[in-house]
Amino acid sequence: MYTNDAEIRVRYQETDQMGVVYYGNYYTWFEVGRNEFFRSIGRDCASLEEEGVFLPVIESYCRYKEGARYDDEIIIHTKIQEMTGAKIEFHYQILRKKDNRLLAEGKTVHGFVNRDLKPIRLKKLHPDLWEQLQACIEGK
Amino acid sequence: MYTNDAEIRVRYQETDQMGVVYYGNYYTWFEVGRNEFFRSIGRDCASLEEEGVFLPVIESYCRYKEGARYDDEIIIHTKIQEMTGAKIEFHYQILRKKDNRLLAEGKTVHGFVNRDLKPIRLKKLHPDLWEQLQACIEGK
Amino acid sequence: MYTNDAEIRVRYQETDQMGVVYYGNYYTWFEVGRNEFFRSIGRDCASLEEEGVFLPVIESYCRYKEGARYDDEIIIHTKIQEMTGAKIEFHYQILRKKDNRLLAEGKTVHGFVNRDLKPIRLKKLHPDLWEQLQACIEGK
Amino acid sequence: MYTNDAEIRVRYQETDQMGVVYYGNYYTWFEVGRNEFFRSIGRDCASLEEEGVFLPVIESYCRYKEGARYDDEIIIHTKIQEMTGAKIEFHYQILRKKDNRLLAEGKTVHGFVNRDLKPIRLKKLHPDLWEQLQACIEGK
Repeated sequence: MYTNDAEIRVRYQETDQMGVVYYGNYYTWFEVGRNEFFRSIGRDCASLEEEGVFLPVIESYCRYKEGARYDDEIIIHTKIQEMTGAKIEFHYQILRKKDNRLLAEGKTVHGFVNRDLKPIRLKKLHPDLWEQLQACIEGK
Repeated sequence: MYTNDAEIRVRYQETDQMGVVYYGNYYTWFEVGRNEFFRSIGRDCASLEEEGVFLPVIESYCRYKEGARYDDEIIIHTKIQEMTGAKIEFHYQILRKKDNRLLAEGKTVHGFVNRDLKPIRLKKLHPDLWEQLQACIEGK
Repeated sequence: MYTNDAEIRVRYQETDQMGVVYYGNYYTWFEVGRNEFFRSIGRDCASLEEEGVFLPVIESYCRYKEGARYDDEIIIHTKIQEMTGAKIEFHYQILRKKDNRLLAEGKTVHGFVNRDLKPIRLKKLHPDLWEQLQACIEGK
Repeated sequence: MYTNDAEIRVRYQETDQMGVVYYGNYYTWFEVGRNEFFRSIGRDCASLEEEGVFLPVIESYCRYKEGARYDDEIIIHTKIQEMTGAKIEFHYQILRKKDNRLLAEGKTVHGFVNRDLKPIRLKKLHPDLWEQLQACIEGK
């Protein structure tokens, strides 16, 4: 279940000459949703990075149903789908606010690394964060 | 087999504060590879659009192995993996030129639509282009 | 006097490897401020384009004082500085919300054109919009 | 006199729904031209940053004459216009290759700072680079 929301408005810069949002820009919106997700649980990605926890993307996927258009208000749903000691998977839904229509959905998979991009064991280094993220996984 | 090459150099704008290329930007590179692919078979995407053939992305995926860095020379391999009456699937490899290392690989799936984003039958409307693309599919 | 506000949060995608927002991205923020400006006077750029009024940029300028950073909340002030029959000039201020510090300021100058990018006389074609914009100019 | 050239091809991602390149993207092209400029004198920006020399932009300007379009081949001319102990100013011209038409021109002004974004005296720290840049200024 998606319980977290971020809201944005489509920028002119994000459109392309087909008159819809360029396909790669949905991944930026996923990032906005992810950031908002962390904020909703009292964390923020900027602080995590200051503490030396980086979450580089190792896989990303998006399925497009209908193009978002300039000035559309967009809702981004984000949830944790799965987490192991080495990685975490987020799922996203992109909806058009005015009619709640699903425009796109996708996922990103992230590793846990330090500033030098070396893998870290989040469970050991940040057990509190680990527990908190675990608690966000559906059905747990 | 990937037989087509595009070459680019990583722009500062494409990096993020992790010091590597932002994950969404690889999709722009896929687009550059795709464009170069069409050029290599004597076509170009700009002309296709003028003729009313648009290829909006309906699915995209990328797996990241190592981050591209500012000023890296990048090679983009592109091939058609599959094509049906309704859609076409491209595969991509992103390599660092200096050591030929595979940094990322992925795919995009595209529908065939007209200027109004309505589906078209490419085989009927552009049989010559259709034949040409068919001939690019491996093993055919 | 700047009376209009847009608020955004810095995206990871907008940073570069210097750890601050890439200089070109402030121009996207100017666009966001401009869009919000039109909305604040009961207009929106999307509708204007549907009516055939386009405002391509013919000049842009930005002065950077301090770099915006990831996750910063940003306020964008926008005002009309000047307008003639052929063009309109907007001024912008980019502020960091938490301490109201001015990070950057700049301007854009726009022509009035139609869908084919041919110049139009806004005053004649849209006298109501023209009057409304005039009323926004300071000291008038 | 502009003696240095970079060449790029307009990406789909760089266009917007007006069918031309989004105005902010020309600043990315200026960056590409600047990078190529350094390479042409045997330097590269990536190495400069590794040595602790950063050139954040403190001012930028662009005047747009005609919109670049998707797939256009673009030539970027870059030159140093001026340099003082504290900053350096580059000028740029953006030309369409097929007819050598000037599409846009602009400038960027950069400070000399270290990794912590503190001002440095380039002349003292890197006299060789300083001399080399001086020699590039027209009329010197």
